[in-house]
Amino acid sequence: MGQTESLPVTDRSRVKRGPRLGHHDRAVINQILDEALVVQVGFVVENQPFVIPMGYGREGNVLYLHGSTASRMLQNLEQGVDICVSATLLDGIVIARSLFHHAMNYRSVVLFGRARLIEGEAAKLQALKVLSEHITPGQWEYARTPTPQEVKGTTVLAFPISEGSAKIRNGGPNDNAEDYALPVWAGQLPLKLTPGTPIPDAKLAANIALPENLTHYQRGE
Amino acid sequence: MGQTESLPVTDRSRVKRGPRLGHHDRAVINQILDEALVVQVGFVVENQPFVIPMGYGREGNVLYLHGSTASRMLQNLEQGVDICVSATLLDGIVIARSLFHHAMNYRSVVLFGRARLIEGEAAKLQALKVLSEHITPGQWEYARTPTPQEVKGTTVLAFPISEGSAKIRNGGPNDNAEDYALPVWAGQLPLKLTPGTPIPDAKLAANIALPENLTHYQRGE
Repeated sequence: MGQTESLPVTDRSRVKRGPRLGHHDRAVINQILDEALVVQVGFVVENQPFVIPMGYGREGNVLYLHGSTASRMLQNLEQGVDICVSATLLDGIVIARSLFHHAMNYRSVVLFGRARLIEGEAAKLQALKVLSEHITPGQWEYARTPTPQEVKGTTVLAFPISEGSAKIRNGGPNDNAEDYALPVWAGQLPLKLTPGTPIPDAKLAANIALPENLTHYQRGE
Repeated sequence: MGQTESLPVTDRSRVKRGPRLGHHDRAVINQILDEALVVQVGFVVENQPFVIPMGYGREGNVLYLHGSTASRMLQNLEQGVDICVSATLLDGIVIARSLFHHAMNYRSVVLFGRARLIEGEAAKLQALKVLSEHITPGQWEYARTPTPQEVKGTTVLAFPISEGSAKIRNGGPNDNAEDYALPVWAGQLPLKLTPGTPIPDAKLAANIALPENLTHYQRGE
């Protein structure tokens, strides 16, 4: 594919705190992006930072972001300004013998770059399909697909995954040597975003069953 | 307390897209902040936005953020630069009859302002207690509390909750009138950050039981 397997380490993408937790491999970054549902998009307007949660989808080395054409944020981003895209998966709380060594287990990605507007109905539809399949695999084949008017009313941006890093903390606590003698429980409290029982729409006809693709919905493995 | 019950609606805190989903009441904002575990903090360095996940705690109308005194991000924030603090709780995926009306159910908060450095051991300890009790209630009384040296090595910032908004989407899909006749399942897939079974540290002595405060850990109700 002519693609490198790792992102370059740049001034803004170097992991400065806890560098041994840092990763620049695409495979590590992609796995986190494929499990998360929301990214936090940071941009600057007149030196004021804004951070807004957005749904997204990944295709190869590109993230797609979308929203209404009326969105002022998207009108801003499509100018090609520098943005920062952050995704965080919380995997647990690390319980240490000392409060100082309490921590979180997480997998996070921070990316830098500029988004560009996707134009043309076919290209926009393909990006919307990627977005849809990222969040609810199987729905593109199952539900009603977008009309030309709906596509026209949607702004879709492409953001290259070309600069950034992942950071991963896992495992148990790292207590001070002398604290291991304390009579204090230590370990991990795992956390996972877990689906509950599907809730049918109040107006759903009684004979319509939950489709197979939504029956065992889960994120990650 | 001389505090207003709502935050002012300003240019940067007005909810522009989907204004009927917007809230400025402190009670709504606080409930979201008290359930979330991580905020995404946006700040600007030489016109480049950065978005970094951080743990935090709330006391009244203040959020506390903390990290190592060696953290370049915190050294930056403690200068009193404008930052944006974003928290997002994902409550579910909205399954519509059309792909266009698929959506997420969420509760999010976006705040604007400047952080200030907390100085003095007593004030820092109190802020660290708030942070600790936010993430793991009960641990402050149970685990070993910070030494003066540990407090010294920790930077704690106070961020006023004085400008910003919450945005909440809940309930089922809003399909186009003509789509209700489609033989397509619609409703909600609820999502919740759920604790798993606690994992004891490999070095934990066999006679140390999980403390009561961690036995039924959960976020929100």
